[in-house]
Amino acid sequence: MALVKMVEYAEAAPEVRAVYDDIMATRKTAGVNNFWKTLASHPPTLSRIWNNVKQVMAAGTLDALTKEMIYIAVSATNNCEYCQYSHTFAARKAGMTDTMLAEVLAVAALANETNRLANGYRIDVDAAFRPQF
Amino acid sequence: MALVKMVEYAEAAPEVRAVYDDIMATRKTAGVNNFWKTLASHPPTLSRIWNNVKQVMAAGTLDALTKEMIYIAVSATNNCEYCQYSHTFAARKAGMTDTMLAEVLAVAALANETNRLANGYRIDVDAAFRPQF
Amino acid sequence: MALVKMVEYAEAAPEVRAVYDDIMATRKTAGVNNFWKTLASHPPTLSRIWNNVKQVMAAGTLDALTKEMIYIAVSATNNCEYCQYSHTFAARKAGMTDTMLAEVLAVAALANETNRLANGYRIDVDAAFRPQF
Amino acid sequence: MALVKMVEYAEAAPEVRAVYDDIMATRKTAGVNNFWKTLASHPPTLSRIWNNVKQVMAAGTLDALTKEMIYIAVSATNNCEYCQYSHTFAARKAGMTDTMLAEVLAVAALANETNRLANGYRIDVDAAFRPQF
Amino acid sequence: MALVKMVEYAEAAPEVRAVYDDIMATRKTAGVNNFWKTLASHPPTLSRIWNNVKQVMAAGTLDALTKEMIYIAVSATNNCEYCQYSHTFAARKAGMTDTMLAEVLAVAALANETNRLANGYRIDVDAAFRPQF
Amino acid sequence: MALVKMVEYAEAAPEVRAVYDDIMATRKTAGVNNFWKTLASHPPTLSRIWNNVKQVMAAGTLDALTKEMIYIAVSATNNCEYCQYSHTFAARKAGMTDTMLAEVLAVAALANETNRLANGYRIDVDAAFRPQF
Repeated sequence: MALVKMVEYAEAAPEVRAVYDDIMATRKTAGVNNFWKTLASHPPTLSRIWNNVKQVMAAGTLDALTKEMIYIAVSATNNCEYCQYSHTFAARKAGMTDTMLAEVLAVAALANETNRLANGYRIDVDAAFRPQF
Repeated sequence: MALVKMVEYAEAAPEVRAVYDDIMATRKTAGVNNFWKTLASHPPTLSRIWNNVKQVMAAGTLDALTKEMIYIAVSATNNCEYCQYSHTFAARKAGMTDTMLAEVLAVAALANETNRLANGYRIDVDAAFRPQF
Repeated sequence: MALVKMVEYAEAAPEVRAVYDDIMATRKTAGVNNFWKTLASHPPTLSRIWNNVKQVMAAGTLDALTKEMIYIAVSATNNCEYCQYSHTFAARKAGMTDTMLAEVLAVAALANETNRLANGYRIDVDAAFRPQF
Repeated sequence: MALVKMVEYAEAAPEVRAVYDDIMATRKTAGVNNFWKTLASHPPTLSRIWNNVKQVMAAGTLDALTKEMIYIAVSATNNCEYCQYSHTFAARKAGMTDTMLAEVLAVAALANETNRLANGYRIDVDAAFRPQF
Repeated sequence: MALVKMVEYAEAAPEVRAVYDDIMATRKTAGVNNFWKTLASHPPTLSRIWNNVKQVMAAGTLDALTKEMIYIAVSATNNCEYCQYSHTFAARKAGMTDTMLAEVLAVAALANETNRLANGYRIDVDAAFRPQF
Repeated sequence: MALVKMVEYAEAAPEVRAVYDDIMATRKTAGVNNFWKTLASHPPTLSRIWNNVKQVMAAGTLDALTKEMIYIAVSATNNCEYCQYSHTFAARKAGMTDTMLAEVLAVAALANETNRLANGYRIDVDAAFRPQF
């Protein structure tokens, strides 16, 4: 159970409804999920985070599915249960198969392993890897 | 300076040289970088980790560049300086532009932010996000 | 369910009861919560951690509520469910409103984002930020 | 050395200069620090992150110094060298003494310790700590 | 509920059964636990991770119980619920008492605390601690 | 360079000298390292942390070297440069060989990998792993 009360559409203030409407229109869904209903307990956070998500997760030079998979890799690293479920759901809607999920998690998990070997041994960066400007 | 002495090719035991040779052949490079020279202080680790990296980072249903970008997102999350430099170098060789790097880091950083909002508020997972088998 | 059996007051050894008594007297509560009952499975840890918490979380140059909010920000970062619930409860008793909680989590989440941008890009520290002694 | 080239004011595009100007005006400084010069390699990120920082770190129900101290606690937890130096500098300008810094870090470090005891033992949340709505 | 369907022995492909058989033979158990049944949704990951675990966790210069305790300390640090339960179970079978578990978690938790003091204050490494080769 | 000025013995207040003397007597060294000189900027933290370290890291049911190795595994996970150097130095004095260090880091790194597979797939804990009291 969340630490604050979720805000349902019927009881929401106009500024919150406006964000909910934009989320539903952008995502073509009939409601908003618990993440947004919880953030709505503090409208400036709701509005700010939605604007960030909308901008950052939209297709750019990377397509939207690639961005979802990067998001999953980070959430697995940080152990965010909510984010794992919600973004795996979103990525599957965008075409991610179980094999693709397996590859995302395999890379994320391996990076977590090699990160600790590099940090644990305190390995010096090779001069060749430093960019030249 | 690393916590153990790095192993140069000229002084390496045959089992280490065999791994070095495979790394250079696979990557078409004239040497191996400090990460491998350090792991070579314990040959079973060198061989094991190389086999994992070779298998996991090869193109599969995800292409090799996408995997490098996932690796960068995780390394930024974990703050692995060595991995940031080495895998940004590798990703650029595979075609990553500065704009693509910016999008990788923007998604990774945003996920780090929203992970803490979801975890911080202890938001319950929506029933709709749980898979049905 | 915890990995060890919790120790209830009725069955506790004198050294454990003494710590429980001090916790209840300090906090003006009628019992101790699961955290302490679990640590009591190893009395030296119970005693040591309580002494640390008592000293560190007491009002100093920072008031006790500010310390609770810092504690919440760290627990959200590390994803400690138990700590989120127990310290949000404590902070609310000390006067934290939902808006204050929202600001704590907004700052914590933003720091998690910008930490990864600074670490991900490997940005050099400005000379002006280094202290002069 | 950062992974991308920093953008100096003299060479910056108008959209980047506009953000730099707003940073300098808001903070009453004669230049911008390396964090912003690096983010400027991707102007949408520069603009987006600055707007987030400006909104979140401004005084609200929590004063600006309290927010800086929360930011320091999170950055110490995540090991962000850049953020530690830049936000300790900012917090000192806002009145943080060495004793206050010591208390911030003591709370942050203790939370990191107790987070692992709670998570390591998998302690169940007390019913009394769950909010009632 | 896991994000992918677990693979039971009766329905498993021969390559998966071969790994399950090796796990049961190595561990002298009558079945495999959920971790392996989940990884089996992607057979190359199942096989690869099992080979890593089998090699790394076997007795070497460190005995198997010491390795299990190190594994517990890391899992407590990363907050892996599954790993805490499964490896505490394994360590107890190998002889770990509640007092030993308490010492493992006390050291892990203290390291999490002092890591943040060292990183938070940005303390320079003493020259005497750097190895000489 | 640390964020606060280190306190040298010659200039230390009596309460700080007393802690320094105890560190040197306990460890049979002729001085104290930078960690303690930095904490001494806030004497209550110096005294408190030293008492914790002295108690927790002393031989108990686990010997002191095993505790040092657990400490190294956690510090590699958290990326604490200072702690890696200082505790590897201490562990080597207590008899840790390069092969033992390699095994510590291999277990720590593998745990970091499997932690993310378990968390990433959200695997349910097997009923058999839950303790019965």
